Amino acid sequence: MDVQPVPDPGRGQILVKAKWLSVDPYMRGRISPAASYTKSVGLGEVMQGGGVGEVVASNHPAWKIGDVAESMSFGWQEWSVLTPDTSGPAGVNKIDPRLAPIESSLSWLGMPGITAYFGLLEVGRPRPGDTVVVSAASGAVGQLVGQLSKLAGCRAVAIAGDDDKLQWCREIGFDLAINYKKATDLTAAVKESCPQGVDIFFDNTAGPIHDAVMKNLAIGARVVICGRVALAGQFGRPDIGERFMGHLIVTRATIHGFLVFDWWHRRDEALKRLVGWQYAGKIRFKEDVLDGIERMPEAFLRLLHGRNFGKQIVRVN
Amino acid sequence: MDVQPVPDPGRGQILVKAKWLSVDPYMRGRISPAASYTKSVGLGEVMQGGGVGEVVASNHPAWKIGDVAESMSFGWQEWSVLTPDTSGPAGVNKIDPRLAPIESSLSWLGMPGITAYFGLLEVGRPRPGDTVVVSAASGAVGQLVGQLSKLAGCRAVAIAGDDDKLQWCREIGFDLAINYKKATDLTAAVKESCPQGVDIFFDNTAGPIHDAVMKNLAIGARVVICGRVALAGQFGRPDIGERFMGHLIVTRATIHGFLVFDWWHRRDEALKRLVGWQYAGKIRFKEDVLDGIERMPEAFLRLLHGRNFGKQIVRVN
Repeated sequence: MDVQPVPDPGRGQILVKAKWLSVDPYMRGRISPAASYTKSVGLGEVMQGGGVGEVVASNHPAWKIGDVAESMSFGWQEWSVLTPDTSGPAGVNKIDPRLAPIESSLSWLGMPGITAYFGLLEVGRPRPGDTVVVSAASGAVGQLVGQLSKLAGCRAVAIAGDDDKLQWCREIGFDLAINYKKATDLTAAVKESCPQGVDIFFDNTAGPIHDAVMKNLAIGARVVICGRVALAGQFGRPDIGERFMGHLIVTRATIHGFLVFDWWHRRDEALKRLVGWQYAGKIRFKEDVLDGIERMPEAFLRLLHGRNFGKQIVRVN
Repeated sequence: MDVQPVPDPGRGQILVKAKWLSVDPYMRGRISPAASYTKSVGLGEVMQGGGVGEVVASNHPAWKIGDVAESMSFGWQEWSVLTPDTSGPAGVNKIDPRLAPIESSLSWLGMPGITAYFGLLEVGRPRPGDTVVVSAASGAVGQLVGQLSKLAGCRAVAIAGDDDKLQWCREIGFDLAINYKKATDLTAAVKESCPQGVDIFFDNTAGPIHDAVMKNLAIGARVVICGRVALAGQFGRPDIGERFMGHLIVTRATIHGFLVFDWWHRRDEALKRLVGWQYAGKIRFKEDVLDGIERMPEAFLRLLHGRNFGKQIVRVN
């Protein structure tokens, strides 16, 4: 690891000591030269990423030493200088540690929670009785999408690649769970699990799982393209495979490219409801914790290869 | 051709002598064993298709000899027994010959017009200033989509495969026209024509044109999948090619499988407005006429190979 002196906060800034750092699938895009919705990380630059930690120095009137700050502008580092007045997803949020363990602000009470909330409820538009299929279903976003689907009166079907993960999915309320690594014919397995077709497909993976679900869409289906972690090994190269124009016309389905930052202005709405549901025992959440900032690359690789079980986070101190 | 005795209309039915028959890209699906939104035509059955003609016998109180009947239930035949009380797209519509030439009921004042109207205005949701790209732009639906785009305050870009067609597109108001057969790099050609990106892609073809436009979507783009005539030679086989998950997430675009029959209950709204615009000189329409029912297969092949120029219809008598 690269060791630098602890930086000094400038005017209006705070210095934060990281307690927890997040690894998320979007980071794959940050280290790809391919066009994405934001710029890539250059060689020698600090890797981008979210974190939560304690304020140890403040030049900002609204922040004092000991406050807890969460931000997607943390970076993979122990000490971070943040600018609290930055707006939008790069902003800095003050975390109330009495509400939930502070690392929750990286998972169900943070970006992944907001992603699940708006991606399912606003983009997917669940109706009671709908069948919702979720890929990477035990992941940070997937496990919440399944639980929110149940709150919306839907039938939820999990797809994951490990029997323990599938067991967890069933425990938190998914009605059915498919192990895509064990299915000899995944399209047929989805069909068997969704005899009336798939009304909402919340896709975190792309790739072969995407294909199998696309062949089982119901009339009027909504497909939410949230992530494509299955393509992590071929980022920036064309993704060649079957297209589904005929299926789309026959089903009149819609495919929605989804980016949570479009909904950031309604972040508080999502967090307030998620807290309410969690307090009421209606949502549960599993985290996968590694200890030590030196394990960030390992944590990231676990995520890309689906070896994490639950939201992957790293405890720094 | 198969020659049968002229049939007798049953109770509540009418016998109609065809004047004009239509060929349309959807018919490709009717002769494919692959699953579509309706059943295929069996061997020995009359090929499905729309037509317009004169009532020569009537067992229905609302229809008299000499009335003009239009229906998608005509079939490729000179004499057709129709059931006027059938509802939906299979229904029979009484045509007012004073409104427009009766063959218009197969084109701009019929199914293709309704397709363009709802596909663009309800599914594509044009905003003034949007850039709309239309494939098969001089076809039955395409030429109307371009003109409706202009009425909605958009910039319209035509894609077609023939300079005469492109000239026509410019005459009826398209701002730019791209000959996909002459472009050495179609993706670059679309980019050059749409420097701010494509806000609405009204896709009648699928295939390589689809790919080139997909790489040029603007943030929030709407892609209307209306047809896939470029795949006519490979119906029922998987369409293998590049997928655009990354583009979809980056642009937050939506892809909409579209079938006009979902909007059939609002057919009259579309026809009323189309008539108004046509009378006001705001829409023009080109038809490609072949003479003689024996030329129906030829007409259909012209359409599938893009050799027609404007809406392909056949004059029966």
